[in-house]
Amino acid sequence: MIQVQTSAAMAALRAMESVVGARHVFSTDEDRRDYSDHFAPDEMERLHEPSGAVAPATVEEIQAIVRIANENKVPLWPISRGKNFGYGGPAPVLKGSIVLDLSRMKKIEVDPAGGTVLVEPGVSFFDLYDYRQQRNLPFWISVPGNSWGSVAGNALDRGVGYTPYGDHAARICGLEVVLPDGDIVRTGMGAISQGPTWQLYKTGFGPGWDTMFCQSNLGIVTKLGLWLMPEPEAVLGLNIDADKPEDLKWLVDVLGPLRKAGILQQSPSIGNWLRAAATMTTRQEWAEPGNPLSDAAVQAIRDKFQIGWWGVALRVYGPLEIAEPTLGLIRKAFDKQPVWKMAETRWVRGDPPEGSPATGVPVTYPLANANWFGGRGGHISFSPVLPVDGDLALRYFRRNSELHAQFGFDYHPSFAIQDRSMNNINQLLFDQDNPQMVENLDKLFRTLVREAAADGYAEYRTHVGYMDVVADTFDFNNHALRRLNERVKDALDPNGILAPGKSGIWPASARGGRP
Amino acid sequence: MIQVQTSAAMAALRAMESVVGARHVFSTDEDRRDYSDHFAPDEMERLHEPSGAVAPATVEEIQAIVRIANENKVPLWPISRGKNFGYGGPAPVLKGSIVLDLSRMKKIEVDPAGGTVLVEPGVSFFDLYDYRQQRNLPFWISVPGNSWGSVAGNALDRGVGYTPYGDHAARICGLEVVLPDGDIVRTGMGAISQGPTWQLYKTGFGPGWDTMFCQSNLGIVTKLGLWLMPEPEAVLGLNIDADKPEDLKWLVDVLGPLRKAGILQQSPSIGNWLRAAATMTTRQEWAEPGNPLSDAAVQAIRDKFQIGWWGVALRVYGPLEIAEPTLGLIRKAFDKQPVWKMAETRWVRGDPPEGSPATGVPVTYPLANANWFGGRGGHISFSPVLPVDGDLALRYFRRNSELHAQFGFDYHPSFAIQDRSMNNINQLLFDQDNPQMVENLDKLFRTLVREAAADGYAEYRTHVGYMDVVADTFDFNNHALRRLNERVKDALDPNGILAPGKSGIWPASARGGRP
Repeated sequence: MIQVQTSAAMAALRAMESVVGARHVFSTDEDRRDYSDHFAPDEMERLHEPSGAVAPATVEEIQAIVRIANENKVPLWPISRGKNFGYGGPAPVLKGSIVLDLSRMKKIEVDPAGGTVLVEPGVSFFDLYDYRQQRNLPFWISVPGNSWGSVAGNALDRGVGYTPYGDHAARICGLEVVLPDGDIVRTGMGAISQGPTWQLYKTGFGPGWDTMFCQSNLGIVTKLGLWLMPEPEAVLGLNIDADKPEDLKWLVDVLGPLRKAGILQQSPSIGNWLRAAATMTTRQEWAEPGNPLSDAAVQAIRDKFQIGWWGVALRVYGPLEIAEPTLGLIRKAFDKQPVWKMAETRWVRGDPPEGSPATGVPVTYPLANANWFGGRGGHISFSPVLPVDGDLALRYFRRNSELHAQFGFDYHPSFAIQDRSMNNINQLLFDQDNPQMVENLDKLFRTLVREAAADGYAEYRTHVGYMDVVADTFDFNNHALRRLNERVKDALDPNGILAPGKSGIWPASARGGRP
Repeated sequence: MIQVQTSAAMAALRAMESVVGARHVFSTDEDRRDYSDHFAPDEMERLHEPSGAVAPATVEEIQAIVRIANENKVPLWPISRGKNFGYGGPAPVLKGSIVLDLSRMKKIEVDPAGGTVLVEPGVSFFDLYDYRQQRNLPFWISVPGNSWGSVAGNALDRGVGYTPYGDHAARICGLEVVLPDGDIVRTGMGAISQGPTWQLYKTGFGPGWDTMFCQSNLGIVTKLGLWLMPEPEAVLGLNIDADKPEDLKWLVDVLGPLRKAGILQQSPSIGNWLRAAATMTTRQEWAEPGNPLSDAAVQAIRDKFQIGWWGVALRVYGPLEIAEPTLGLIRKAFDKQPVWKMAETRWVRGDPPEGSPATGVPVTYPLANANWFGGRGGHISFSPVLPVDGDLALRYFRRNSELHAQFGFDYHPSFAIQDRSMNNINQLLFDQDNPQMVENLDKLFRTLVREAAADGYAEYRTHVGYMDVVADTFDFNNHALRRLNERVKDALDPNGILAPGKSGIWPASARGGRP
């Protein structure tokens, strides 16, 4: 049985000091708060508070820590850099777990001929960008909204970015993993000793395992291979704004076929006025706390910042000879639509950097939205996957707007148009110092999950506090997927030391406690 | 311990008659020959002869068959349609296995809005093409060289085709799998009961399992989701021929960057004169049996069929406004190279079908190459993955030409330029009625594997007779990948009934017998 009591965890932390040195073991009250989720309500934060943390610098140290965890039967919660805000930050599912903080592991190896990189988990998007800039490498990285985060961690959690390489998990090519028993495996072509094709060919020979370690508690990824985008000659863009809520329908219906046909190479994300405004202003400038935001206030915000009710940034990458006619076709697709505003962007190699994530430049400004309500801000994301359909998008937008209003929240949705699906990322912004809001947050989230599930939709990613709730919605054949997950879990992690509860997967020793 | 003796297998086959009816159980000598690999030498064919076969029509029947296999501890070897020529056809690794023939399962479900299809294993490329034609669906399928084969089976074995959707495994989206204990799991979003996103979003929530069932013996795939390519407005092409062996270098070095940058959307395959000639003529027309093929004979063949020493077909798909400048850029990239012949191709929607696999039309003519040497023809493929590098390609071509000549074979190589890797597919053509050739075949194959492994290269796919040989080359950390494979194998298949030995993965019960 997994020990989550402080005494066992404390003994393990002491033993880990001999591995990494006392200064890389963290077990004070302040340390525990540091490794908690500051974007969550206080109560939820305490529910997911770790016993402490340990920060190894090498794979061998990780192996030694895993050995101690197995001996002491204490759970480890691996994090890359702990910046997975909206989904739990550094915090474990299971209270009292020891956070295995890999942020000291910062090696970067680029293969310039292959256009690939092998990163350790501590490498942030800023680190990789700096590395690229210092060496003037002819490759761009794809960054997410929070570039403090880990390149590897973001890809493993299926984070997304803004360029044609924005589906980060899809660009993973080869992993090094420490299994829960301390064994080290390299996936794909990495299983060849000294072979040069580890980062060049994804699948290898026999079963492919890269995706097994995504959103998973089956191993500790210590190196991750990723494909980089060759620097394009040009990036041409259209920033499109629409004026009315119902314009969402045609935005989706125009963009869907362009994306599916590959004319749009990146996955554009349609966001509402609040997504744009919440990084530039705060609510208190426009409404009294507790009062709903009036239509007039929304209009005033839109007027001040010159933003649409909806906005979407489209970008085309490549040689000018191809990018220009491609942009022309995209523009033409909007000819018959009531576009409110359309602005062109143009970057050509040699121009000064555009400084936007669309050109692979790291950013953090989207995080500012947590300040929207004032107080200690926070957010939790609700992210169901939907078919690409304008009517459906509009129906979901309307229903979820009502639910947000009913529970006292402002609605902050986006709809990312992917190859074949639409990821509807909603950020539930709140004020941690507002007890009513905190209480309603949980109700709103569970209602959103329940209503989506009734339609057959589920999330692709969720907060540590809701992993079982979301895993429950994957219920085919009386939860056959969970049975498969947990059979593999038991085979690889018989003591159940690795991230119990992650993605709703519990080891045999802790399964009885499943909520 | 797995029983491979006929008595246990025969008892199981009798029991299976009550599940599928006697007419769908095959256990005569003739049946065993039918389910063997006719492209292999006689001796190898006998080494991989099954006890018989059973052909269920439903998932429930598969579950019943799996139950009988577990009770009788007899191994099952699932095949989709058994047309994996060059890699073993329908034949099992382990002699005496019962072939589980899924070719009667032929359901096709297309989601026209999503542009996806869900196929059962018995659906061939011809079947899917007919389905598309009858309904005039605005999607193209990607076909391999042997379109008799199964759409699902080909994708699961990582087969390739000619269009931008030619990496078939990469287009898989969601599986239904019968596990070795008879449980049924649906992967990804298919784990939502009644959800419409199964074929729309690949990864789901938590660990992703689609690739676990590729080239694998961990489950029986009963339904496979696949993305279809929206019908393009145009397909423009260049057929490029080069005159000299050493031209391989610049062909690779020009195509590599175009492919990596995504200007080339499909993965072109550079093949030598023999790849082209072997489907149009036979060796005896040009040389005495047993004598080497002279340079003059090669020249005469090239003159007669007007083919280059190397040839490659490039195709650009999309709206004319984009395809035309794209083809222009590709043409320009060859400006400074000594191209021997360059021919343009052009298909625009409304034109009569081009009738080539480049436009998604099924073919079988590449199979004719097995007749090259006369007698009962056959071939085995040697398919290492290499970095994309012209010098390396040339070096491999030269060394492997020497080895082929030394062992009395004509060299039939191709180099497929993929996103980041080069798949060097070599077909070892031979005459099964030539004992010296048959003896040398094995020596040549093992030499090729050994020499590639010494450079750190391994195959992505191999013949059932060489699965252990190839799996052995994945040796990092004393075969850690094999340990991982086999731990999962033991967890999911404790009786070891499913395809023992596939991809070098043996169940605990049969592991002692690993060669």
